[in-house]
Amino acid sequence: MSHGKQFTLYTHQAGPNGWKVAFVSTELGLTYESIYLDFGKNEQKAAEYTKYNPNGCIPTLIDHKNNDFVVWESNAIIVYLAEKYDTAHRISASTPNDKVFELQWLFFQASGQGPYFGQAAWFKVYHPEKVPSAIERYQKETARVIGVLDGVLSKQEWLIGGKYSVADIAFVSWTNVALALVLPDAQGINVEKDYPAFWVWHQKLMAHDSIKAVWAERAAVQS
Amino acid sequence: MSHGKQFTLYTHQAGPNGWKVAFVSTELGLTYESIYLDFGKNEQKAAEYTKYNPNGCIPTLIDHKNNDFVVWESNAIIVYLAEKYDTAHRISASTPNDKVFELQWLFFQASGQGPYFGQAAWFKVYHPEKVPSAIERYQKETARVIGVLDGVLSKQEWLIGGKYSVADIAFVSWTNVALALVLPDAQGINVEKDYPAFWVWHQKLMAHDSIKAVWAERAAVQS
Repeated sequence: MSHGKQFTLYTHQAGPNGWKVAFVSTELGLTYESIYLDFGKNEQKAAEYTKYNPNGCIPTLIDHKNNDFVVWESNAIIVYLAEKYDTAHRISASTPNDKVFELQWLFFQASGQGPYFGQAAWFKVYHPEKVPSAIERYQKETARVIGVLDGVLSKQEWLIGGKYSVADIAFVSWTNVALALVLPDAQGINVEKDYPAFWVWHQKLMAHDSIKAVWAERAAVQS
Repeated sequence: MSHGKQFTLYTHQAGPNGWKVAFVSTELGLTYESIYLDFGKNEQKAAEYTKYNPNGCIPTLIDHKNNDFVVWESNAIIVYLAEKYDTAHRISASTPNDKVFELQWLFFQASGQGPYFGQAAWFKVYHPEKVPSAIERYQKETARVIGVLDGVLSKQEWLIGGKYSVADIAFVSWTNVALALVLPDAQGINVEKDYPAFWVWHQKLMAHDSIKAVWAERAAVQS
């Protein structure tokens, strides 16, 4: 590493999963140098990259202060960062039970939010033919997942431990995909009105300094 | 609990994610009473169940030897079981680095295998109209994920720690969905020939006593 930052983060300007890692690193005051892979050139499938991440997707983190330790899968990276660099548990679970709940929500995010919001985006933007029944399927599932979170957040302010944590942060970037791309034209779905507890939670997350800073960084690299 | 088993496992006869939990419990010699929810009657969305699992999906585990502790999301359940009941690390990571890699593969399974193999099954069996381009998309992604595993397993026998572990076990039931349902009619894909390291690994997993026992239990409840 010649860049002097603690981490090298292989990521993508638009890919939601890379920004999750940026949120958590920034929240913990840890520095990263982002390397934006060019998907147009298939850089994510090049041997130079897949030697780190055999899945050929983003993100991948290299920790230069831990013998160049390499980890991929965004939520595994988040848990790694929390376990290693949030030993005071400021933004991560501090009890055995809460650790299980933290994982439970991270797995719900990884399996229930990301892939389904992602399929909605796929069929709206990238699929070679227009398939309204597929778009409808994934818009409905996006709203259902938001409803699950809304139900929980109508009874508690944060997902785990009574505080803002990585469990909440992990949902931010895909929620923004839902609000900006997946749901605007969905029949009969108004997130702010239909899912008010979810809406308030997401607004609070977006107002956090670290998330605001990373979101501004994202706007800059996308412009 | 009146059934006398350590766990109550809310699950479904055909749902792959519930069987993962059964594999790990059985491997650890822990007993469970399966409650099979009737999706035809929407039991997974009934308040009686969503009080445990607000997502309204299976599986959910209740641990009667830990104050009726409730956890959902299959891979969070697996980590819970490993951390609490595999303290000798017989089938789970024993070093800090391997713990990160265990999570990395579990997140890959949860986000990359389950949802995509699941969408392939959805468009083949349940979608209200026939969409060949969607079926093709998910068959190709299923093969791609198998290829990622094959590449890694051509260089090492098991995913983490040089031993059979929960990281491997987590892939078994969705792999069986791929082999039985998703890929048989996929053009130009022959798993045994194209992905030999993956094939050998999966056969070894299916030959494990605990997995064989659970798979026989599955056959019995499905008959």
